[in-house]
Amino acid sequence: MLIKGTSLLQKGELIPDRDILIEDNKITKIERDLKEKDEETIDAKGTMAIPGLINAHTHLAMTLFRGYADDMELMPWLEEKIWPLEAKLTPDDVYWGVKLGCLEQIRMGTTCYNDMYLFMDETAKATKEMGLRGLLSIVNYDMRPDLLKQVEPFLKRWRGDDLIIPAVGPHAIYSCSEETLLKTVELAEKYDTMLHIHVSETKGEVESFIKERGLSPVEYLDSIGFLSERVIAAHCTQLSQKDISILAKRNVNVAHCSISNHKLASGTAPLDKLTTAGANICLGTDGASSNNCLNIFQEMKTTSISQKCAHFRPELFKAQEVWNMATENAYKAFQLNMGLHVGALADLSLIDLKKPWLCPLNNPVSHLVYSMSGGVDTTIVNGQVLMRDGIIPGEEKVLERAQKQFEDLTSR
Amino acid sequence: MLIKGTSLLQKGELIPDRDILIEDNKITKIERDLKEKDEETIDAKGTMAIPGLINAHTHLAMTLFRGYADDMELMPWLEEKIWPLEAKLTPDDVYWGVKLGCLEQIRMGTTCYNDMYLFMDETAKATKEMGLRGLLSIVNYDMRPDLLKQVEPFLKRWRGDDLIIPAVGPHAIYSCSEETLLKTVELAEKYDTMLHIHVSETKGEVESFIKERGLSPVEYLDSIGFLSERVIAAHCTQLSQKDISILAKRNVNVAHCSISNHKLASGTAPLDKLTTAGANICLGTDGASSNNCLNIFQEMKTTSISQKCAHFRPELFKAQEVWNMATENAYKAFQLNMGLHVGALADLSLIDLKKPWLCPLNNPVSHLVYSMSGGVDTTIVNGQVLMRDGIIPGEEKVLERAQKQFEDLTSR
Repeated sequence: MLIKGTSLLQKGELIPDRDILIEDNKITKIERDLKEKDEETIDAKGTMAIPGLINAHTHLAMTLFRGYADDMELMPWLEEKIWPLEAKLTPDDVYWGVKLGCLEQIRMGTTCYNDMYLFMDETAKATKEMGLRGLLSIVNYDMRPDLLKQVEPFLKRWRGDDLIIPAVGPHAIYSCSEETLLKTVELAEKYDTMLHIHVSETKGEVESFIKERGLSPVEYLDSIGFLSERVIAAHCTQLSQKDISILAKRNVNVAHCSISNHKLASGTAPLDKLTTAGANICLGTDGASSNNCLNIFQEMKTTSISQKCAHFRPELFKAQEVWNMATENAYKAFQLNMGLHVGALADLSLIDLKKPWLCPLNNPVSHLVYSMSGGVDTTIVNGQVLMRDGIIPGEEKVLERAQKQFEDLTSR
Repeated sequence: MLIKGTSLLQKGELIPDRDILIEDNKITKIERDLKEKDEETIDAKGTMAIPGLINAHTHLAMTLFRGYADDMELMPWLEEKIWPLEAKLTPDDVYWGVKLGCLEQIRMGTTCYNDMYLFMDETAKATKEMGLRGLLSIVNYDMRPDLLKQVEPFLKRWRGDDLIIPAVGPHAIYSCSEETLLKTVELAEKYDTMLHIHVSETKGEVESFIKERGLSPVEYLDSIGFLSERVIAAHCTQLSQKDISILAKRNVNVAHCSISNHKLASGTAPLDKLTTAGANICLGTDGASSNNCLNIFQEMKTTSISQKCAHFRPELFKAQEVWNMATENAYKAFQLNMGLHVGALADLSLIDLKKPWLCPLNNPVSHLVYSMSGGVDTTIVNGQVLMRDGIIPGEEKVLERAQKQFEDLTSR
């Protein structure tokens, strides 16, 4: 595939008039006026090319629960609304919920996402059919010991896939025993993959753990040898200085979920101290049940402005820094060779520059972080065009089926 | 004009299959299967109709400064970046900056905005040409005594216009003398219009005023008889309990600017206490120089989630409540007969429901507040169609001219 005449985002600047050659699933050339011919040529004049954004923490099937329960305290929200729905969940619900979430991510330039949930074979199938890249983990918690048994077969089934990276997902320290946690580490090491876990999301969770065990969740995880560069720790809103040092020292990747943490009133993560300590910070939307969308552009903006305000320092978390959280930092965390360079995976988007929120065009990273009021126009993953000029083939059918599935689920 | 077969947002619910008849600039009928014929008929099947959103505080010409200076402390931002640009500003800069801002507001369903800035005749002209409704005030501050002299002719020139409501805009207590403030009150009363002022935006401003005068800005404004239901007080992030009681008692309208206040690290306004006291709260984007967009949907979401988090109470500021801030509360503040009802001004938008962020469709107000990742599709103001199915006639020319004007301004 040949992309002709785009402007390339490189180190915060736009390099105009560039052609991108994609062969198989990789970028093989980026030059001005490439002479190659290709049957599939995209006229990209008037667009900006950006590398794929990564959603570092979500539960994509929960897109089906969007707007079903808002503005509630955490425990009634879970107990009265979310858990009763989840108890009735079928593989079909997950399949259509994931497809719906994929549509939204394609529209928002998110080319890869990190997920933990139930029915992960359906998630993998739906993700592959939609063409996105997914790091997928079966959620593990002790109330459902059968789930842990499914992990190794799942890892075997999907390893080596071109789009799906199977990983391991112990839910949290309060829902998994030490034995379960250690078993998940063993599996992640055996299959050389990531560990995806919720860490210190709420004050109550951290306080009650300290009271019971005399250790913070992070100290505890460190004490049992859980923490390493394999770990994606979602949330981390409630950390002590000692926790922060441990996370940085162990090279843990933090998936910061600014919007979900604000909407559920979980707190503002200490990103300033994590950054100072050298931790690797990525961005996640969490599920659409607590966000309520899957928009990493929005996540970048909320992250920056909420951190600025929390510290009364508008110069903190500059546009380029939060842009890196959604790109470079995440590529490092998930060991993906991505970016707009030769040899990288062909995971990228084109954005029509003729949009009022991108005008005047003088500081593209600022616009991407602070003023993206719309989505992208063309999304390519693994060398395949998933959306072109705003059109995703089959979108309407997915929307109809997801609607039907939601109505079915809530009337079951 | 006849809008056929839309779903009407009424009290948080969607009423399907409704036709809306617009005659001249008003809604004259809303029924199922209207038999009227009209040359201009809009097939609105598959859309949701919402009433116009109001941007209660902005400086639209500053859209030309979008992304020009971010991530800076307030004083260097103003002194090194914003003020030097403003010193070179021409009427043409304002004209094209306003047109650019109008484009974005049309795309985001904002049908009326409240502005305070320089060169307001150009702002009025550009706003009328774009077809939006504007409450426009010449900014007044004592460093430019000539501006105050322009106010009465401006009020006379534009009163009675079908789209422009001329108002009076003393900048702030720290930039206007008591004499100036009282003169603006006199003018607002004489011409029966609004007073638009910045109030208690930053901690520094409030602290230094208290130190000098022994009164808070709000106490001071009350002591000189400035406060009434004519006043739109922008920001109000730094208020004492006494200030809050005064604002409520005097029926002042607060224009809350959540994103700008966060990005400039000005603080989180005490909306909980303002609400409890009975104050009327509206939403504003502030200028695109500190936001960096003009998106009231985003403003609703940020307002709700930042307030929830600040108070650790996810049940606060429910979707319907912040939706009202952008609609009903603002209609009341600006005395506009708006909404989706017979007799109201024909200021409304249609949203294509076939968007992934609106699916599953079960709670439309939640989706509008928490998951609008795109804009609206059709915008009508004063009975005129400004955008239809995503197309604004002449948009490209405005984008090109705004770009040129920005380049000209910054190289002057």
